[in-house]
Amino acid sequence: MSTNRLLKKLRIKYPIIQAGMAGGPTTPALVSEVAESGGLGLIGAGYMTPEALRTHIHETKALTSQPFGVNLFVPECPEVDADEVAKANALLKAYRDALHIKDEPVVSVPTKELFDEMIDVVIREGIEIVSFTFGIPTKQTIARLKQAKITVIGTATTVREAEMNEEIGMDAVVAQGSEAGGHRGTFAGRFEDSLIGTMALVPQVVDRVNIPVIASGGIADGRGLIAALALGAEAVQMGTVFLTCEESGANELHQEAILRSKEVDTTLTKVFSGKPARGIRNSFIADMEKHENTLPAYPIQNVLTKEIRREAVRQSKPEWLHLWAGQNMRASQKQSVETLMKRIVEQAEETRLSIQ
Amino acid sequence: MSTNRLLKKLRIKYPIIQAGMAGGPTTPALVSEVAESGGLGLIGAGYMTPEALRTHIHETKALTSQPFGVNLFVPECPEVDADEVAKANALLKAYRDALHIKDEPVVSVPTKELFDEMIDVVIREGIEIVSFTFGIPTKQTIARLKQAKITVIGTATTVREAEMNEEIGMDAVVAQGSEAGGHRGTFAGRFEDSLIGTMALVPQVVDRVNIPVIASGGIADGRGLIAALALGAEAVQMGTVFLTCEESGANELHQEAILRSKEVDTTLTKVFSGKPARGIRNSFIADMEKHENTLPAYPIQNVLTKEIRREAVRQSKPEWLHLWAGQNMRASQKQSVETLMKRIVEQAEETRLSIQ
Repeated sequence: MSTNRLLKKLRIKYPIIQAGMAGGPTTPALVSEVAESGGLGLIGAGYMTPEALRTHIHETKALTSQPFGVNLFVPECPEVDADEVAKANALLKAYRDALHIKDEPVVSVPTKELFDEMIDVVIREGIEIVSFTFGIPTKQTIARLKQAKITVIGTATTVREAEMNEEIGMDAVVAQGSEAGGHRGTFAGRFEDSLIGTMALVPQVVDRVNIPVIASGGIADGRGLIAALALGAEAVQMGTVFLTCEESGANELHQEAILRSKEVDTTLTKVFSGKPARGIRNSFIADMEKHENTLPAYPIQNVLTKEIRREAVRQSKPEWLHLWAGQNMRASQKQSVETLMKRIVEQAEETRLSIQ
Repeated sequence: MSTNRLLKKLRIKYPIIQAGMAGGPTTPALVSEVAESGGLGLIGAGYMTPEALRTHIHETKALTSQPFGVNLFVPECPEVDADEVAKANALLKAYRDALHIKDEPVVSVPTKELFDEMIDVVIREGIEIVSFTFGIPTKQTIARLKQAKITVIGTATTVREAEMNEEIGMDAVVAQGSEAGGHRGTFAGRFEDSLIGTMALVPQVVDRVNIPVIASGGIADGRGLIAALALGAEAVQMGTVFLTCEESGANELHQEAILRSKEVDTTLTKVFSGKPARGIRNSFIADMEKHENTLPAYPIQNVLTKEIRREAVRQSKPEWLHLWAGQNMRASQKQSVETLMKRIVEQAEETRLSIQ
């Protein structure tokens, strides 16, 4: 009965959270189907405008009366170094030329004001659950959300980061193991030191915080769910396995890459966004990784490659596209969210364990 | 009851295997106490002479009538490049000077004949279980062991390596996740691609081989045991948590380093042996890692640093010593094997899981 505390707080039936993957996968159909199936769906609003988020919330609410949440990126506002940007643009020129992209993008970084507007939207729209990646928001932001009775969930890749999430007042914390696909949530300490496998990370976090821990990284089925609960987590967060669902908004190239990949096919790379992320190796990574440490920081590099990635989708060039995936992608298949959720729950319920 | 198949084969009570850590930790006291407590102890014979192995077996048998096993390294016999060795010796000179080591070592690599002698010893001494790391032995070797009714266990870090172990005739395979301490078992493919977290690796291996899978990497308590069984493993192998047991032969500097370290303190390095291994970061790694890719291959670099490491122990310099540890070392404490085994079993038995 260890999971009751978090399930009650989140008002969901099963301890299964669909990761708030930014950039398109978390359609209203995906999020609402997760909610209708008894899990927690999250709108991945990391790259959305307040208007887009509002629209997504309205469309999701039209499809379900169950609770769902929103994932936000805590903003990072690095100084823009014109020389660094010029160097990166020189490296990216060959891709832009090949894709017939004429202009270099205008570099802008998100502002604190934009983040506050996103917070305004979730409060005004009556969202019950907000999760954060890439750091911890200010105490003021947490206080505003709590005053609105919103449950707040943070992300940690180390024990220390989990403790920081608890200290700032998070109601729960996602422990993101090294297996996880997409961007690393590391925000305190070096990312290289913060690649802790889920099997090792979860129990060490559970032993050192009092808030519920949500296991993520390498979990894609009912076996992983039971394993995570055994480690002391009170729920799991799954990303990759939702990307190939029928309701997913992930582009076809991305979905096809996941469906044909093996556990050895991913790597950690900063070349797409300036921040380490796990994705399927392709020629963009192979060609750019030697420049990895001179590229602009996140999110500047992300802005610089955005149009290249958008055109790579349009022009069917998966070799130049960010193909985020975790290490357990062999579990991925084309299926409805309802089928996936049923399979996870059934497999978990069938798991019989005996140590003798 | 999923674990019965392997437990019956190994004639042990609990699905807990103490890793066959080479270089001293697996004393007769350690291995026999694991056996007496219902687990499988393994003599880490990777760096032993046939004579030393024979002695270890005799001494262990004197302490227990329960079955135990032996872990062997499948030999790697790289060409010795005199220039490469000279360059490495130049880099190591400062350490030798500081430790008053006068001579550079004579470089020798293990031979196929030596490995065959080790196989002779395990057969003649009536060992029931032999596990292998760093590759798969020849069909002839497997056939000899099977004729002697010895259970053979391999090591894999990817699905493909697990399949290769099954194809050669292994009775079970250890799936070594990226969390694991000490040397990576990777033998097919690039080691960088083979760092799969235990949570992701185990179910993918279980789905693709028919032989029992033993989970390793980041498992240090009863929660990890239950989690591994949930993932479909039939046993776990634990290493780091045994290193600080009272019966462990690991040197005090190593044990103290483990007891004061955190999950973020390890790294993967080739500087000590020429083969990637997970250990606690120290100044030897920091100073040598920039040369990592020009150092001689395993086991040549291991031979070159051997006396430095031995003297580092004698002269109390943990900063120059290989401090192998996995990512779940916060579970480590000074305790007897009997206490550790009881704690693991009790915690596993107390684990109650419900997904609602």
